[in-house]
Amino acid sequence: MERKVKNMEAIFFPRTVALVGASDNSKKLGFDVLNSLKNGEYKGKIFPINPRKREIMGLKAYPSLRQTPEAIDLAVIVVPASMVLEVIRECVEVKVRGVVLISGGFKEIENDLGAQLQSEIANLADGAGIPVIGPNTFGILNRKIGLNASFSLELSGVKGGNVGLLTQSGGMAHIITYLSMSSNLGLGKIMGLGNRCNIDFPQAISYLMEDADTKVIGVYLEGIDNPRLLIDVAKKHRGRKPIVIYKSGQSKRSEKAALSHTGSLAGRHEIYVGGFCQAGMLWVDSTEELIDTLKVLNFLPLPQDGTAVIVSGQGGPAITSSDVCEKMGLTLAPFNPSTQDMINGVLPPLTMRSNPLDLGPSWNNVESLKSILRIVLEDRYISAVLLIIVYGPANRHFIRELSGLLMEWKTRKPVVSCFSYPSEKWAKDIEDLEDACALVNYPTPERAARAISNLWKYQKIKMGVLSH
Amino acid sequence: MERKVKNMEAIFFPRTVALVGASDNSKKLGFDVLNSLKNGEYKGKIFPINPRKREIMGLKAYPSLRQTPEAIDLAVIVVPASMVLEVIRECVEVKVRGVVLISGGFKEIENDLGAQLQSEIANLADGAGIPVIGPNTFGILNRKIGLNASFSLELSGVKGGNVGLLTQSGGMAHIITYLSMSSNLGLGKIMGLGNRCNIDFPQAISYLMEDADTKVIGVYLEGIDNPRLLIDVAKKHRGRKPIVIYKSGQSKRSEKAALSHTGSLAGRHEIYVGGFCQAGMLWVDSTEELIDTLKVLNFLPLPQDGTAVIVSGQGGPAITSSDVCEKMGLTLAPFNPSTQDMINGVLPPLTMRSNPLDLGPSWNNVESLKSILRIVLEDRYISAVLLIIVYGPANRHFIRELSGLLMEWKTRKPVVSCFSYPSEKWAKDIEDLEDACALVNYPTPERAARAISNLWKYQKIKMGVLSH
Repeated sequence: MERKVKNMEAIFFPRTVALVGASDNSKKLGFDVLNSLKNGEYKGKIFPINPRKREIMGLKAYPSLRQTPEAIDLAVIVVPASMVLEVIRECVEVKVRGVVLISGGFKEIENDLGAQLQSEIANLADGAGIPVIGPNTFGILNRKIGLNASFSLELSGVKGGNVGLLTQSGGMAHIITYLSMSSNLGLGKIMGLGNRCNIDFPQAISYLMEDADTKVIGVYLEGIDNPRLLIDVAKKHRGRKPIVIYKSGQSKRSEKAALSHTGSLAGRHEIYVGGFCQAGMLWVDSTEELIDTLKVLNFLPLPQDGTAVIVSGQGGPAITSSDVCEKMGLTLAPFNPSTQDMINGVLPPLTMRSNPLDLGPSWNNVESLKSILRIVLEDRYISAVLLIIVYGPANRHFIRELSGLLMEWKTRKPVVSCFSYPSEKWAKDIEDLEDACALVNYPTPERAARAISNLWKYQKIKMGVLSH
Repeated sequence: MERKVKNMEAIFFPRTVALVGASDNSKKLGFDVLNSLKNGEYKGKIFPINPRKREIMGLKAYPSLRQTPEAIDLAVIVVPASMVLEVIRECVEVKVRGVVLISGGFKEIENDLGAQLQSEIANLADGAGIPVIGPNTFGILNRKIGLNASFSLELSGVKGGNVGLLTQSGGMAHIITYLSMSSNLGLGKIMGLGNRCNIDFPQAISYLMEDADTKVIGVYLEGIDNPRLLIDVAKKHRGRKPIVIYKSGQSKRSEKAALSHTGSLAGRHEIYVGGFCQAGMLWVDSTEELIDTLKVLNFLPLPQDGTAVIVSGQGGPAITSSDVCEKMGLTLAPFNPSTQDMINGVLPPLTMRSNPLDLGPSWNNVESLKSILRIVLEDRYISAVLLIIVYGPANRHFIRELSGLLMEWKTRKPVVSCFSYPSEKWAKDIEDLEDACALVNYPTPERAARAISNLWKYQKIKMGVLSH
């Protein structure tokens, strides 16, 4: 692995962090970043750098990186663009191990000076093996150690977990992180790659592939200069960890916007789709599908093959989710005869005893539901279960009553659910089951169906039977 | 209008309700329905009917419909299928004005007896001009008067409003209602049409078209016997009130499931799509799109034409939403020269001053944002605004600071937003603006873009320029 990629470890697990441009003026970025560093749960040492201050937010300040009492693992830089090159020279001189460069005003601006400055920084950093995340980024987080090296303290509110998130847009990183708070997705490392000075998507993915805390990688991308390199990295690691990719800039107008946003040509959309999919990346089409897919990959085992069953308390949601499964290539096969016999032994003829299965009048009978669930979990010709239960007075304890069975099977067969409920009724029970990796829940039947279909898609990528 | 359709008024605004099959056994449906009637906010009189009880839940019970002290507007029936015909005969005899038939065991079961029984009921009721909603339904609600004639008391928790919801599936009605609670969609009348004895989609839509409290009609449908009739009704009312339709049962397997679910052939999906769209119904593809679209139509004025602007604090979400707008036929045209000049006067060159517009470094400057917003609202060549703001410490008061401007323009130009925020931060401010019909908010940029695109689609239906 390249030295600078290996050194990214210093960015995510620093023992010491210096903030160049720290400020006690709440209107400055240097204030917000220090606030995030200090008031997250980070336990390492923080050194504010500001030549005009002796103390900021109760921390002793230092005039420059040369004066800090300890070696610096991570330097976070928020000074104006014109001063950055000098700071990077200092970083090289004092052997800073990694840099997060938040400052803007480089390749994304509409004249050549910014691009030139950025390229000089890259050359300096490359020479010293220093990874530089940014410039023009909101920063990075590592929830594992409570590190928030970004200008948004609020991002520290997201639950920690094993999803690594790489984005080319700070706005999208914020939206994804805020939504993850309510959808119970566990995020571990969050990276705003910004203008990608010397750490671009290929390097960041290489790092996360080796990172023990990262199980699934989510990518939001607008355009990159060298898609070939990304495709090569994805191919090299194909099937090791899922890479879920959401690429925007699909239309001409948005492509133009992407160019001015992060200084990269979005490029012909079709070329990206083809190349990325062939390299084994899992393609998704929206912010919501990105989060939903990361969640199912993060929490559940992969299905053995593409045969799923839908077990639903009601007919309607069984049908809507069935539509999505079939559209996305997940097979809802008829039950084999012995399974069908067992099901017929549990459910009266009034119900829809085929696949999708509708409990009909038995929707409020927890023993029937448990029996059916056990039958399909034990059937080796069924490799994934989509369970739909709609809250009513008669089934208000169902989630708790099913939890033993779900816990028992959690490592063997994926169970995705749409448990639909008013206000907070089932929220806690569901969160407990998700945290235990016993199921993943979605608010609509279609989103649950899409998630389980994408889980199967990734299994196909892993088995090498899906190239797009 | 047909007499039975006119008489649906008695179902939704009854002064007296009888519950045939009321029970004090909490395991029976007759208990749950009485619970919903009694513990919603309904102020009319409730008469439990049960020959073996003198009192149920503190209400005086009566042996049959013949013995109630007052004429009955609405009879809700939950007795077993075999007893229903006799109860309907009583309804005719004592001149009940409308019926909600919750009991199952009719056309949806796998033998002909059920279908035959249902047809006898329909003939009797038709002869007397009595509308019968059901059988095989969870019931109906009218939030306007707090009436909950269903077996789920929880449904009373949804905020009242001007959306009428018709579904063929109780499960889907529950899911949509539960989701409406968190998405702030105002539901007025909710109908589970079930097996559609003598009130089918065409009749229910005809009723809601005349209903003063209903502004928008949402339809979830699996399959109907006579699509022609529905198409004719939709055509007749084309452009009067939006009809948003979500039809499931698109694949062979789910079509079969739909048949056994409510006893109707789903029919060739393509035929439905074509016919419904040509009749001016707005086609949507998921539960979520149904709710999102109903919400925007319920709260916002229609755009004059198909030119929209995206104003965003960040580039990423501007690009993802731009993709969706262009895919769905909403034009993001360049600004006209005078507008562009004004925008250039507000924003520094570093930002993306085209459409989509990215505030760039000005994202945290509320005066710039207000100026831009005013410029695009006042530009008569822009007919819809998509506003994207991502929460940060520097903009935490923005929603409140923008509210005056949004209130000022609310009846003239639709503003859809994606205000993204951690936990509850902006929730209350947004709800206030939505309740005032000043904007409609969505959790992701793509969903906001889809909603504003569908608002334009409905305007095209109204203007007669969109046939599919």
